[in-house]
Amino acid sequence: MAVARTVLLTGSNRGIGLELVKQLLGSPRPPAWIFATCRDPDGPRAQELRDLASKHPNLVLVKLDVENPSAITDAAKVLEGKLNGMGLNLLINNAGIYTPTASLDTVDAEDMVRTYKTNAVGPMLMAQAFLPLLKKAAQDSKEKGLSCSKAAIINISTILGSIKKTPDSFFHPVISYRCSKAALNMLTMCQALTYKEAGILCVALHPGWVKTDMGTQEVSSGQAGQQGTHGWHPML
Amino acid sequence: MAVARTVLLTGSNRGIGLELVKQLLGSPRPPAWIFATCRDPDGPRAQELRDLASKHPNLVLVKLDVENPSAITDAAKVLEGKLNGMGLNLLINNAGIYTPTASLDTVDAEDMVRTYKTNAVGPMLMAQAFLPLLKKAAQDSKEKGLSCSKAAIINISTILGSIKKTPDSFFHPVISYRCSKAALNMLTMCQALTYKEAGILCVALHPGWVKTDMGTQEVSSGQAGQQGTHGWHPML
Repeated sequence: MAVARTVLLTGSNRGIGLELVKQLLGSPRPPAWIFATCRDPDGPRAQELRDLASKHPNLVLVKLDVENPSAITDAAKVLEGKLNGMGLNLLINNAGIYTPTASLDTVDAEDMVRTYKTNAVGPMLMAQAFLPLLKKAAQDSKEKGLSCSKAAIINISTILGSIKKTPDSFFHPVISYRCSKAALNMLTMCQALTYKEAGILCVALHPGWVKTDMGTQEVSSGQAGQQGTHGWHPML
Repeated sequence: MAVARTVLLTGSNRGIGLELVKQLLGSPRPPAWIFATCRDPDGPRAQELRDLASKHPNLVLVKLDVENPSAITDAAKVLEGKLNGMGLNLLINNAGIYTPTASLDTVDAEDMVRTYKTNAVGPMLMAQAFLPLLKKAAQDSKEKGLSCSKAAIINISTILGSIKKTPDSFFHPVISYRCSKAALNMLTMCQALTYKEAGILCVALHPGWVKTDMGTQEVSSGQAGQQGTHGWHPML
């Protein structure tokens, strides 16, 4: 099976992002380059990521805040230099934020905008900035059709962003998060329609309820029926 | 048929908003109060609205920018004074903005955030601020169930906010608009689930392709097949 040779993922210092880095490093054919971004790669919360990078020369830590457009274009230049003519096969927009207490009684404009910037606008800017490298990967590939090993954008979404399924999980309102992820799902549809001609696959994934810094809060909420969906399911 | 006695609508100086004001004023049993908000009720773009207000004492113009949280709470105080113990039957969140040129090549963070603030965050803040008056209307009503004549929030949405239907209309990408309206549809679902216990109906409506300052741009784009859906259709 073909695998992605070059991968970039955001929010990689913990939770799903960190686990993805580990899985990629431990795969039978690990990528030639894994670019793992986070807001503060030198800080205490990225220690595990730094430990991994010290053992795996194909893992490169890149400082990036997806809320900062100029930081994103700077990161694209760093990658272009490292890749030295290669394209980027896979962009995983995993970075996301979440206000667990945001009901309609408590959510405010500032929370709504901050969450939207990170969860929806960030993935849009990432795709724009890395589009030339994704296009290059698609052009250089001999594969037909669309695939993650050729050129792809994966936006990590959530079942909480599904309007239709909202009644099933509304014990946890998380308004700012839900609205941002519904917008991310729309963005992904727009990206799929726009980028397919360049040979780039675009999908939104629901990773399931995962026990992370974020997900643990779900598990502790006592909604046992909502746990255990650890598989990844397409979201659109 | 019961009708709303008190109505508030945003973005009322032109387009769909202005036409709604006219329809309400001309109805067989016009509301006791129509509160028509716009950003600049004293400016040249609100002349037609001022002309209507001079003829109809039940039409009250209220200055309001839905991007400004404190302006929204100020407007709620104005209404509370005018209503003098009555509730608000119907809140129509009609104000919206739109960047016609926003493809994935051109859309930027500033446009994404500005559009989200007006089209999704604004309706959330409006509902929060006017909730006590809507609840009062619901409590004072003798009607059973949920209805616009009892207490309701109508969010003016668009078919362009439907993820599923995006491929049908993607000749017009309008990324920032689509993402904001997908989020508005999610917000509406959350409002419906939250506010139903207070007796408040919450719906998102697609008004169809209407020839307005905004809609005219659609008509002029030569997509004749997309015109003519002037009915109002539930969106969720």
